[in-house]
Amino acid sequence: MSKIVTFGEIMGRVAPPGFLRFRQAFPGSIDITFAGAEANVAVSLCYLGKDVAFVSALPNHSIADACVSNLKGVGIDTRYIIRTEAGRLGLYFLETGANQRPSNVIYDRDGSSINMIPAESYPWKEIFRDTRWFHITGITPALSKMASQAALAAVTEAKANAVTVSCDLNFRKKLWRWEPSFSPQQLAEKTVRGILPYVDVVIGNEEDASEALSIRAGDTDVQAGKLAIVRYPEVAQKIISQFSNVSKVAITLRESISASHNNWGAMLYEGELQKAF
Amino acid sequence: MSKIVTFGEIMGRVAPPGFLRFRQAFPGSIDITFAGAEANVAVSLCYLGKDVAFVSALPNHSIADACVSNLKGVGIDTRYIIRTEAGRLGLYFLETGANQRPSNVIYDRDGSSINMIPAESYPWKEIFRDTRWFHITGITPALSKMASQAALAAVTEAKANAVTVSCDLNFRKKLWRWEPSFSPQQLAEKTVRGILPYVDVVIGNEEDASEALSIRAGDTDVQAGKLAIVRYPEVAQKIISQFSNVSKVAITLRESISASHNNWGAMLYEGELQKAF
Amino acid sequence: MSKIVTFGEIMGRVAPPGFLRFRQAFPGSIDITFAGAEANVAVSLCYLGKDVAFVSALPNHSIADACVSNLKGVGIDTRYIIRTEAGRLGLYFLETGANQRPSNVIYDRDGSSINMIPAESYPWKEIFRDTRWFHITGITPALSKMASQAALAAVTEAKANAVTVSCDLNFRKKLWRWEPSFSPQQLAEKTVRGILPYVDVVIGNEEDASEALSIRAGDTDVQAGKLAIVRYPEVAQKIISQFSNVSKVAITLRESISASHNNWGAMLYEGELQKAF
Amino acid sequence: MSKIVTFGEIMGRVAPPGFLRFRQAFPGSIDITFAGAEANVAVSLCYLGKDVAFVSALPNHSIADACVSNLKGVGIDTRYIIRTEAGRLGLYFLETGANQRPSNVIYDRDGSSINMIPAESYPWKEIFRDTRWFHITGITPALSKMASQAALAAVTEAKANAVTVSCDLNFRKKLWRWEPSFSPQQLAEKTVRGILPYVDVVIGNEEDASEALSIRAGDTDVQAGKLAIVRYPEVAQKIISQFSNVSKVAITLRESISASHNNWGAMLYEGELQKAF
Amino acid sequence: MSKIVTFGEIMGRVAPPGFLRFRQAFPGSIDITFAGAEANVAVSLCYLGKDVAFVSALPNHSIADACVSNLKGVGIDTRYIIRTEAGRLGLYFLETGANQRPSNVIYDRDGSSINMIPAESYPWKEIFRDTRWFHITGITPALSKMASQAALAAVTEAKANAVTVSCDLNFRKKLWRWEPSFSPQQLAEKTVRGILPYVDVVIGNEEDASEALSIRAGDTDVQAGKLAIVRYPEVAQKIISQFSNVSKVAITLRESISASHNNWGAMLYEGELQKAF
Amino acid sequence: MSKIVTFGEIMGRVAPPGFLRFRQAFPGSIDITFAGAEANVAVSLCYLGKDVAFVSALPNHSIADACVSNLKGVGIDTRYIIRTEAGRLGLYFLETGANQRPSNVIYDRDGSSINMIPAESYPWKEIFRDTRWFHITGITPALSKMASQAALAAVTEAKANAVTVSCDLNFRKKLWRWEPSFSPQQLAEKTVRGILPYVDVVIGNEEDASEALSIRAGDTDVQAGKLAIVRYPEVAQKIISQFSNVSKVAITLRESISASHNNWGAMLYEGELQKAF
Repeated sequence: MSKIVTFGEIMGRVAPPGFLRFRQAFPGSIDITFAGAEANVAVSLCYLGKDVAFVSALPNHSIADACVSNLKGVGIDTRYIIRTEAGRLGLYFLETGANQRPSNVIYDRDGSSINMIPAESYPWKEIFRDTRWFHITGITPALSKMASQAALAAVTEAKANAVTVSCDLNFRKKLWRWEPSFSPQQLAEKTVRGILPYVDVVIGNEEDASEALSIRAGDTDVQAGKLAIVRYPEVAQKIISQFSNVSKVAITLRESISASHNNWGAMLYEGELQKAF
Repeated sequence: MSKIVTFGEIMGRVAPPGFLRFRQAFPGSIDITFAGAEANVAVSLCYLGKDVAFVSALPNHSIADACVSNLKGVGIDTRYIIRTEAGRLGLYFLETGANQRPSNVIYDRDGSSINMIPAESYPWKEIFRDTRWFHITGITPALSKMASQAALAAVTEAKANAVTVSCDLNFRKKLWRWEPSFSPQQLAEKTVRGILPYVDVVIGNEEDASEALSIRAGDTDVQAGKLAIVRYPEVAQKIISQFSNVSKVAITLRESISASHNNWGAMLYEGELQKAF
Repeated sequence: MSKIVTFGEIMGRVAPPGFLRFRQAFPGSIDITFAGAEANVAVSLCYLGKDVAFVSALPNHSIADACVSNLKGVGIDTRYIIRTEAGRLGLYFLETGANQRPSNVIYDRDGSSINMIPAESYPWKEIFRDTRWFHITGITPALSKMASQAALAAVTEAKANAVTVSCDLNFRKKLWRWEPSFSPQQLAEKTVRGILPYVDVVIGNEEDASEALSIRAGDTDVQAGKLAIVRYPEVAQKIISQFSNVSKVAITLRESISASHNNWGAMLYEGELQKAF
Repeated sequence: MSKIVTFGEIMGRVAPPGFLRFRQAFPGSIDITFAGAEANVAVSLCYLGKDVAFVSALPNHSIADACVSNLKGVGIDTRYIIRTEAGRLGLYFLETGANQRPSNVIYDRDGSSINMIPAESYPWKEIFRDTRWFHITGITPALSKMASQAALAAVTEAKANAVTVSCDLNFRKKLWRWEPSFSPQQLAEKTVRGILPYVDVVIGNEEDASEALSIRAGDTDVQAGKLAIVRYPEVAQKIISQFSNVSKVAITLRESISASHNNWGAMLYEGELQKAF
Repeated sequence: MSKIVTFGEIMGRVAPPGFLRFRQAFPGSIDITFAGAEANVAVSLCYLGKDVAFVSALPNHSIADACVSNLKGVGIDTRYIIRTEAGRLGLYFLETGANQRPSNVIYDRDGSSINMIPAESYPWKEIFRDTRWFHITGITPALSKMASQAALAAVTEAKANAVTVSCDLNFRKKLWRWEPSFSPQQLAEKTVRGILPYVDVVIGNEEDASEALSIRAGDTDVQAGKLAIVRYPEVAQKIISQFSNVSKVAITLRESISASHNNWGAMLYEGELQKAF
Repeated sequence: MSKIVTFGEIMGRVAPPGFLRFRQAFPGSIDITFAGAEANVAVSLCYLGKDVAFVSALPNHSIADACVSNLKGVGIDTRYIIRTEAGRLGLYFLETGANQRPSNVIYDRDGSSINMIPAESYPWKEIFRDTRWFHITGITPALSKMASQAALAAVTEAKANAVTVSCDLNFRKKLWRWEPSFSPQQLAEKTVRGILPYVDVVIGNEEDASEALSIRAGDTDVQAGKLAIVRYPEVAQKIISQFSNVSKVAITLRESISASHNNWGAMLYEGELQKAF
């Protein structure tokens, strides 16, 4: 029981070189790599020497082959990346900010493989056979109804196999559009609240908690730039009190100085505050 | 009445540098330009000094802005490129062949803007007001039902305004999938036969005529590499006899020697053979 | 009457990649773009949604075609860029500074098209027909006698057509060499004082005012790095009192920390100080 | 007496990468190297182990420093490259042809240093002290009156020092414009006929001889693509008979198949035909 | 028993971009990949869907990590790449030829890991447990005494495990220097004749057979460009008759037209000639 | 007596572009230049207008030719760079640090030419004939026994010719491995103490003095980040008192803030403290 598994979409990340804007960089030579919140976690854990599998879905063409090769090269177990006839490779375009100009992301993930295959496409039982930790994020259930169902099936099966489950809330307002009658926040809350009962460790920040769970400290204004670190234990405490299976809450803090300079902090709450730096 | 108008999808063309294969090139620095059969015709005519407008649909983001800027820079009238909230920028990935290895194309056009907007989104009456020639290809109706309806609406309105209409058959078997109960050839023939009654000049080759119209010369085997030029006037004659409004048929001939070397020829048929070289 | 017009030279801007010095970068791969003070203003206004024409002169070859395409792509009206048989495309070579090493510019503008054609080559009457604002800088009259005469003819005609005229003083000591019997400052003052009577809005900084107009606040030492912002209203006041048609003076302030870090400020003076930040 | 000296202009050679056209390549990353007919000869001889000096004139800035460093690195004696206050670095822009599209050159050499300094700027006596061979081409006298006078002074002084002189006729119709009352051919003939009496070895092809010297074989049509090799000894014989000091004529032959494929040949005539291959 | 194993050195392959010569390319941006005769075979077999392990030795640093990642990404089993404290990553520098200029290789393999570790460093018994085919080349025994001993130990153990062994003779005169008292040919013959008794399939060409084994057809001149294909079966027959365990000989034929154009052929001899194309 | 001579190894410096890590950059396009502590000093002095020769050893191939060309281009006298049949071009691989990640260097200098030739290969008498200053560093004697002997021979001969000798201690713990029975510090101290009696000017920092000479100020902890500048004169004084021929000690101070930001200082001690900034 020593493997770690992460599950989510891996995309082509298309970025102009340096600080070029989209309008300056196209047509031209653009950097394309592969990325995704859950794949990045898998890669980092692998670099740290862990035994990691990444579960996802990709189309059956040679650019997706290149993506799988890349993960394999790092040492990740890629056996459970489902290759599909339908569906495309999701993409996102990233324009890096500079000074007061913020970074800009254009998502191009509609119709990607992970959004086109049903929950039962993944052999979760087999995947979790020798797994001790399963990691997902709030991005996967935001993508589509199908991806949302797959995420729920995954955590349910993980719990049934006594696997520890962590979830990074990772609220992205630009996603969460698959049920047009709900606002992004409403859809997120409805869906995430269905997943958290199967989660042991919640990762997030004050804005995630507020937007995806309507959980807020007394007088926080989450739109403001500077987040008051003193209110964080309160948010963590509220999450734990609402979801009795959650035993730990980790909160990361980023204070933006400019597009390329940030101050960072982090906090781990486990019943009481464990560590903050 | 002096303008030329072309209509179709313009895409991001994503190609590894040199002769790199997809598996070698990703991740890495990739060349992205903008291209499409009908946009390419518009650009070439513009370089030849003509007054040209290009009609299309693109999403409302800054990479599409870069695409429009590029066309504007050439001198093309881009007023009738509809910008949409829904829909994405179509892409295609091109791996250039070498020696006996053929080129490889991965289409990623599903859900692009031109496939998401209804025929009536384009102000054809206004577009054709001072137009003398309208050019489409068999690619647009192959993309989706909506694009197919837009193409039909366009040629109908063009004829109503006494605009000369040319159509490059351009049969692409990988497309023509929007009506799954038909084979690509069946869907093509049903659709293209609906469009040709509004066309004055047909452009194509023997394979296009065979696949999209079931029109063949006596004993042609279109799969074979070397096409017999002697049978071409027969094909042209058959097209003209089936579509009484078609007055000219132009056929281009490519004989592949290797992935990077071809012999080229062309023929113009106008009642009788006009010119071949 | 809604168009904005700017007039000046647009050049090839030749710059080594990154922070490479000329001696390291040549021979090699160099970045070439198109730039010029007045063209840059035109591009920025276009991006802000304004209707802008850029007037200039360029040789009749295909690199200049690329330059015009680039401006057209942005949306700029390029009809009044005169294409000449005589004259070359002006260039400047830019080595970007780093830390305590300052940036270095090598001008290569002699004999460029804008310096080779007479004032009457530009159809100013036609250009100003529907124009509300005309912008020039002190760079154009510094280039050559011919460019200087063209600048004067332009502002004269602008005023005759009730167009608002702005002029960025932009004193460049390396230019202003076309009348060798004068020093750069003398030639600048003689020439700029001939132009300002047709100007409504003056833009500049303390050094520009001192070098090009001999206008100084009480005890300013313009060579020193830190400019005293408190003296700026005095400089603005003196410009307005000497040129009765000038109604506004805008002063931009740059305090150099290193080659790549600056503090910026700006001030608008309109009879009294309007705004400073 | 063992040194070889060549004299002429060295320029920045600005070329888009690959087969990109100027309109596609600008703005962008462009390859800049240093080149010139006489400098290229110097470099090749140096690579073959000869002791070579290159004489020229360049402006006094750091891009020209880079050019001199480059020659020095090859091992060329650069002591006699005059550095000037006036004058610029000549440039030429090269678009490489492909298939049936020919290469395109834009010269930007007006006002370069070699065209701005008088013949007496070069210390020919000192230069020729230990020189056994001096090489010039017909390009230098084509550039300007000053460069033409410098070329004549150089060959005169070379002969006075018993140095062997070779001259590659190298007729370039786009140059030879410094005396507008003459056609390029007239100006070339007048000037080159003044230089050849000091020359021992003439290098050229049939077109050079025809255009620059009005020397033709019986029935040659120099505009035609395929040059008849059989007539070459006749041309060489005529040059030797008109200029009694010329002892050898070398003719190179290029037959263009496409922009990138040529057949090559060469012939050496020394009283009678010596060698042809 | 379904795995294929190859064994040899994998190096950094350092090559200037395009056709640049070393003198032009350094300093500059150079392409570095990983390559080696036996690793290339492993990669190709992997692409063809085979189950392949590659055995080698590499130093214990992060550039070698990148090399292993690259092989892993292709799907190769890299468990048996020994990581060493002593020894470096072998390199070779490749200047690609053009026209009549041949390609140039500079080897920089001395002191690489594979040359620094003893034969018993590799767990051959374990490696061959489920292996059906083992492939080596004549390059490995040419590198050093230690590599030569490792190659011999490997084929011996392979035979003991009933693994089919193939050996590509691959004679490289620039290598074979580890026993200075022998000429390259002498050292090769002495060593290769010690290995072939354990080999089932020999791959080579006429020159390999002549240089490494002193086996020649009747009147072959191996230095000549055009090799007479008719003599190949004779060479194959001689190899089989001298080494009774060899059952098959494959000969590849390359006829050089220029540095970048070759005609290719191949022949398989198995008692009698099987196939030639 | 006006020449300056420096002596040491010049290597290929192989660095991924930007801040890429080795694992990300290979395979790919890598920047290769030439560098070395003593060659860098020669280049800087040459740029400052000094007459400088650089003495070293390099293999006899065309990449080393490129290295020599590069130095020659700067204006350095390269006559005394010995070209060897044995030995390779030393390399080092540099991964540039970012934020809290430090830079990483992989040396690949074993077996380089300077380590393969005996001290008497260099014509020191001839080299020092018109030399006034000779500069070495503690890197050369750290490389190998042969390089160490060459360094000692050089300073001995320099002193015999009344040349001023400077030595930058430059302690590198990763080197100093050529006498495995000693620790790097022991080997350094033994060797450097043999060289300093011939040195006039010592350059170093507190760590160099401590590691290579066991000379420390009262209570310095050289492992700590912030070095106490107040103790530096004490270190300089101790060096001068132990080596009576040393007349000056220069100490440079670098305080690391992050991988890319440092504070710099310097001190010159000449009997008493001369200058510090």
